[in-house]
Amino acid sequence: MVEYVEKSTQKVDVWKLKTYMCKVKTMDIYTGRNIIVLNKDEAKEHDIYAGYRTKLNFRNKSVIAIVDVSDEIVRPGEVGVFRDLAKEHKLKNGEKISIVHMDRPESIGYIKKKLDKETLSEYEVKTIVSDIMMDRLSEIETAAWISGAYINGLSDDEIIALAHATVESGDRLDLGKKGPVLDKHCIGGVAGNRTTMVIVPLIAAAGLYIPKTSSRSITSASGTADTMEVLANVTFTIDELKEIVLKAKGAIVWGGGMELAPVDDKLIRIRHPLSLDPEGMLLASILGKKKSVGAQHVVIDIPVGRGVKVPYIERGNHLAKHFLSVGNKMGMNIEALITDGAEPVGHGIGPALECIDVLEVLEGKGKGPDDLRHKSLLMTGKLLELCGKVRKNDGYRVAQDILDSGKALKKFREIIELQDGDPKVKASDIEVGQYKHAVTSKVGGSIFHIDNKTMAKIARIAGSPRDRGAGVLIHKFRGDRVERGERLFTIYAESEAKLDFALKALEKLEPIEMRKMLLGSVG
Amino acid sequence: MVEYVEKSTQKVDVWKLKTYMCKVKTMDIYTGRNIIVLNKDEAKEHDIYAGYRTKLNFRNKSVIAIVDVSDEIVRPGEVGVFRDLAKEHKLKNGEKISIVHMDRPESIGYIKKKLDKETLSEYEVKTIVSDIMMDRLSEIETAAWISGAYINGLSDDEIIALAHATVESGDRLDLGKKGPVLDKHCIGGVAGNRTTMVIVPLIAAAGLYIPKTSSRSITSASGTADTMEVLANVTFTIDELKEIVLKAKGAIVWGGGMELAPVDDKLIRIRHPLSLDPEGMLLASILGKKKSVGAQHVVIDIPVGRGVKVPYIERGNHLAKHFLSVGNKMGMNIEALITDGAEPVGHGIGPALECIDVLEVLEGKGKGPDDLRHKSLLMTGKLLELCGKVRKNDGYRVAQDILDSGKALKKFREIIELQDGDPKVKASDIEVGQYKHAVTSKVGGSIFHIDNKTMAKIARIAGSPRDRGAGVLIHKFRGDRVERGERLFTIYAESEAKLDFALKALEKLEPIEMRKMLLGSVG
Repeated sequence: MVEYVEKSTQKVDVWKLKTYMCKVKTMDIYTGRNIIVLNKDEAKEHDIYAGYRTKLNFRNKSVIAIVDVSDEIVRPGEVGVFRDLAKEHKLKNGEKISIVHMDRPESIGYIKKKLDKETLSEYEVKTIVSDIMMDRLSEIETAAWISGAYINGLSDDEIIALAHATVESGDRLDLGKKGPVLDKHCIGGVAGNRTTMVIVPLIAAAGLYIPKTSSRSITSASGTADTMEVLANVTFTIDELKEIVLKAKGAIVWGGGMELAPVDDKLIRIRHPLSLDPEGMLLASILGKKKSVGAQHVVIDIPVGRGVKVPYIERGNHLAKHFLSVGNKMGMNIEALITDGAEPVGHGIGPALECIDVLEVLEGKGKGPDDLRHKSLLMTGKLLELCGKVRKNDGYRVAQDILDSGKALKKFREIIELQDGDPKVKASDIEVGQYKHAVTSKVGGSIFHIDNKTMAKIARIAGSPRDRGAGVLIHKFRGDRVERGERLFTIYAESEAKLDFALKALEKLEPIEMRKMLLGSVG
Repeated sequence: MVEYVEKSTQKVDVWKLKTYMCKVKTMDIYTGRNIIVLNKDEAKEHDIYAGYRTKLNFRNKSVIAIVDVSDEIVRPGEVGVFRDLAKEHKLKNGEKISIVHMDRPESIGYIKKKLDKETLSEYEVKTIVSDIMMDRLSEIETAAWISGAYINGLSDDEIIALAHATVESGDRLDLGKKGPVLDKHCIGGVAGNRTTMVIVPLIAAAGLYIPKTSSRSITSASGTADTMEVLANVTFTIDELKEIVLKAKGAIVWGGGMELAPVDDKLIRIRHPLSLDPEGMLLASILGKKKSVGAQHVVIDIPVGRGVKVPYIERGNHLAKHFLSVGNKMGMNIEALITDGAEPVGHGIGPALECIDVLEVLEGKGKGPDDLRHKSLLMTGKLLELCGKVRKNDGYRVAQDILDSGKALKKFREIIELQDGDPKVKASDIEVGQYKHAVTSKVGGSIFHIDNKTMAKIARIAGSPRDRGAGVLIHKFRGDRVERGERLFTIYAESEAKLDFALKALEKLEPIEMRKMLLGSVG
């Protein structure tokens, strides 16, 4: 990855005069942040207090760390180094490092500007990103940056600067001049929506490159990387990804396993607790990641509906246009699709159950969920048209032919094999949780709504995604007529206790709503 | 202090099903936050990861803590408890506590509302404050709350709700029905501005109550509490403060030493790194603290000028009116004064040097800085008029009479004695740093500007406020004519090394600017 070189600030950094040497004492605690522990009295002597930012110098390296202090564990002359930091920089007990009290990084001024509704220059945005990468900014300061971007918005130029800085923060996949590179992205929120695992083999079988990096679940029941991991390894280096893609044209790997756009992971850690998704950061993050793998033609899936990120179609259209304008300015060919996200796609929710859906669609023979098949073909068709491989309006039919010919299944198995999985795998081989419970309808009627979030919550309580076989299998869908006592869905778990947890939680949740005639009465 | 009772949230908290018991293992590290360390694998089994929020239950108590994880230091069945938490709740090694994974606190939704430009109800503001007090909100979430209040502003009703919640977060001083309680506050930024130490004895000598709580320095050269500490103890409980005030009518103590408005300290910790001072929070904080000590008549000092918080007089006027309207709605009688804050007040900057200024003003005999004497008399006069003790326009003269009569000096010595200091102290007794260096002018001319921040920086580098005798003594002031080689100011330090640091820093700083005729040229 790119090595950030510290920029000299204009202000006089008088504190830099205050340096002292310490011996490393490693401490076995993960903190997820760069933290050191100094002896309280000694630190005070050097005007350093808990929460201060320091620079550690050792072996020609410089690392920024936040200070904690201790009376006893760390003696004068020692510096306690937490596991994250010790591991990353191979710091050994007794190694000598120098501690320097640092001034505020220059990017704090730029964050303040954004809070004051000013527009930042490319240099200012890139400085913020590099300071985040170097751990020069604390969580507090980063939270203010995200809040400012959320409330005051980012201009297109700021978004592009942020996307480019995101790309530059990490590694890049370079396939050389091997023909067009395609990609797809879904902004998420729809349970069971595993189109990637159908689209990638379809595109690769059509002879086009699609080096897909996917995420793991944060709050959903399963991410594409979690589901793919049932069938194959998903953790690869960037060089290994390149090797797989040069052979099979496609791959489905975990994006977090490599150093692609690493600043994004640091931002998500802060954005997540508040579910704060500033539109400009969403665009920069997604388009930056696409740029990192060298994508030229990208289809963006924007699910719209009750309970997903984008509740109304007007907002979906606005977001779609924004993706187009920024993506085009970044030199990418974009098509953004507004899709129906009001209920889960496919039958299964949870890694193993979703694998069955995907494999059944690829195996054909009329099995597998219609909606997953249809949506995957639609998106593949758009991608084929977008890159000029097939004529306008021919994409869906061409994709369908590839699927029905069995070439996509063959390609999927080739990818699975290159990713260290069993290429002979069939839908019927996939094992699901041995503890299960079928939930039946207490009333007769027709189904009005199946809630993505509530279904995901039930699947998670049952153990998904860590327990690969845990999750929910839906039997009845929106608009379906059900009789009293008929099965609505089945919960799967890998332990009886977790199945019980899910059933207990279910008492207070309403994952499926029946249509009601009377919505209220007055008088 | 007020005990916060947890409110039940409307949402189903299914995670509460997941509880496990652990034995306490205390760890000698201060973190400034409630953090526990769990065994990594065991936590994972309970779906708890680093950064998650948990509730600890023990002895009918509940505490919220953030999770760190460790492979080795903490074994399964143990919970590592950092020093802050262990000390506060007297947790002993081996004590059994239960760990519960918590859902998001309801106030996160209200913070999101503020980010979305909505106005919060009194209940919502109070819930945010109580969640901050209970450590239910992380630094990230609190930073978003402050950023939202900064960008979107707070309505008067929100400010009042915040001020009342601030008062309710801590202890209160109740002097009974003893006659009017007066107070003063300066919003800060002016070096050497120690009016409090002159005003308090003046008001108390006039027979009126003034229980003044002051702060320590954060980035300034010295806070009033630091300076007062040269002469007396400043750390007292609320009951001790009451005792002193009932005897002497006045006191000058450290506000941080008692539980007055403790939520404020938590907010300042987050606001400080970004110097983020949302106007509404400033008002709520100051007026809340005044309310906490039962103040009825309050004079607010708003210094305006180059380099202080409020650079322009228009902004000062706006802030003054805002203090009045909110203060009046809270039932307090307010007068806000716009003062000249463009250069330091008094001669000395740093605890001991400032004490000399204060004592010389109180001792009279034509000694002591004129500006400190004049400003203190002016503010005392306004306070005397505000509470109806003297007629409009008579305040200054009455204050002057008290000062000149020696009654204020006598009262100050009484207060010093009640605060465990030496009542016989004189200006000439105060010891300053033994290492000193006089800085002379390199050119002849007249002084155009003396910079508060740069002077404070030099004093800090020389050791202030920790080294009580360190600081800067200014000899020449704005408008003064100086010859080449004439003394401008003297730096004092308690060690040769610190004096050298300050002199080295001085090479790159310009604390005093001379008047320039030619400001630029074109062509």
